[in-house]
Amino acid sequence: MNRPAFGVFYGVGVGPGDPELITRKAERILNEVDWIFLPAGGNNGSFVRRIVEPLGLPTAKFRPVSLCMSRDRSEDTNAYRLAANEIAKELHQGKSVAWLTEGDPLFYSTFLNLYDEIGRDPRIHMEIVPGVTSASAAAARAGVTVARLHERVAVVPAVYGIERLPAYLEEFTTVFLLKVNSVFDQLLAIIPALGPRVRAIYVEQVGTTSERVVTDLQSLRGQKLPYFSLVILRREEHQP
Amino acid sequence: MNRPAFGVFYGVGVGPGDPELITRKAERILNEVDWIFLPAGGNNGSFVRRIVEPLGLPTAKFRPVSLCMSRDRSEDTNAYRLAANEIAKELHQGKSVAWLTEGDPLFYSTFLNLYDEIGRDPRIHMEIVPGVTSASAAAARAGVTVARLHERVAVVPAVYGIERLPAYLEEFTTVFLLKVNSVFDQLLAIIPALGPRVRAIYVEQVGTTSERVVTDLQSLRGQKLPYFSLVILRREEHQP
Repeated sequence: MNRPAFGVFYGVGVGPGDPELITRKAERILNEVDWIFLPAGGNNGSFVRRIVEPLGLPTAKFRPVSLCMSRDRSEDTNAYRLAANEIAKELHQGKSVAWLTEGDPLFYSTFLNLYDEIGRDPRIHMEIVPGVTSASAAAARAGVTVARLHERVAVVPAVYGIERLPAYLEEFTTVFLLKVNSVFDQLLAIIPALGPRVRAIYVEQVGTTSERVVTDLQSLRGQKLPYFSLVILRREEHQP
Repeated sequence: MNRPAFGVFYGVGVGPGDPELITRKAERILNEVDWIFLPAGGNNGSFVRRIVEPLGLPTAKFRPVSLCMSRDRSEDTNAYRLAANEIAKELHQGKSVAWLTEGDPLFYSTFLNLYDEIGRDPRIHMEIVPGVTSASAAAARAGVTVARLHERVAVVPAVYGIERLPAYLEEFTTVFLLKVNSVFDQLLAIIPALGPRVRAIYVEQVGTTSERVVTDLQSLRGQKLPYFSLVILRREEHQP
């Protein structure tokens, strides 16, 4: 009789793209919940839906929600509020709901907006199922060490942090630059100034059939790069 | 007839502790490989072995390797070299080998030492299976947002970075302080100086039955803390 009157709300991370990088927990929760909400279309929606395709979940369980994902935060906030209302309605009726997100739910994810909205009702129990991040997956595909022992790591959305790159690489051995597509030419201009000890590797759409790992970043000049792209910068130390 | 003459060497991350956070890929690879090497005993060995217990892998497949995990790097380097030789011997005979590691293989893991050693032989193909990090899992259990949109994240081993904490929290919204056990009193002394907008949450042994999440860090003063412990520091912004 421990069953709460309200359904549980799950933030489920399904990893960066490869369906095999879904955890056993995410798989179980997605099978158990009554509803699976997710963004409809756009960069995130169709992508995350494709990740869970091989799990063979019943189509009727999916509840795509229209989000515009624009830079204009106010429109997004509105869309998330509507989604949160729809989800809350189900939770109030004792239904369990998962919000499906690529990567990890707390790491640059669509889930965070719902987390805030739904978290306002203290009666609702929320559980987060962590996932493999695109950063981890990109490093794995590129074969780049992220951190050993004493090393520090920074994760920086390129749009807001690219000018600080040289300073960051003084303090941090590895820097992940996320969403590099819109500032890539600026990045190309900065890289030579980082010196020969800094390696740069570009990874796009990691874990999908369109995956690409490029070590000669200059060769990408002028190309239109996708939204799911990142650059790993690593300062190589002398080996013992 | 595409089978390579040499076996493949896999770095397999099995996540932070909860066996359900193992990915489907890690599970498949561990079932497929001929040998599963892992550290014997110590902080890491018995821990990582326990994570994969529920997979029911045959005991005869496991090859525990003695590593001292001391601060004296030279002893460790020697132990890893011996382990690498043993692994290479199997790979040369066409056997596939996995190195088992908690969390993610490229993120502060025992795998990195073998990666360097075995990577010296260019004939050997290596593949890395990324895993959920203890950082992601700790944030999930603590319910702390790691990063949204424009926010930056830093990961810092406490032993080497604690004095830079106030500066880091100016630039980074979230800072993960790893391995806080040995410098915890020092950390307690710094926290008040970070101001009221910085939340600090202590998480130990995430995903295990001994897991503990503590928000009042001062209450931990004088306690002996375990090796697998971290603190999440987050600078709260004003909500829109």
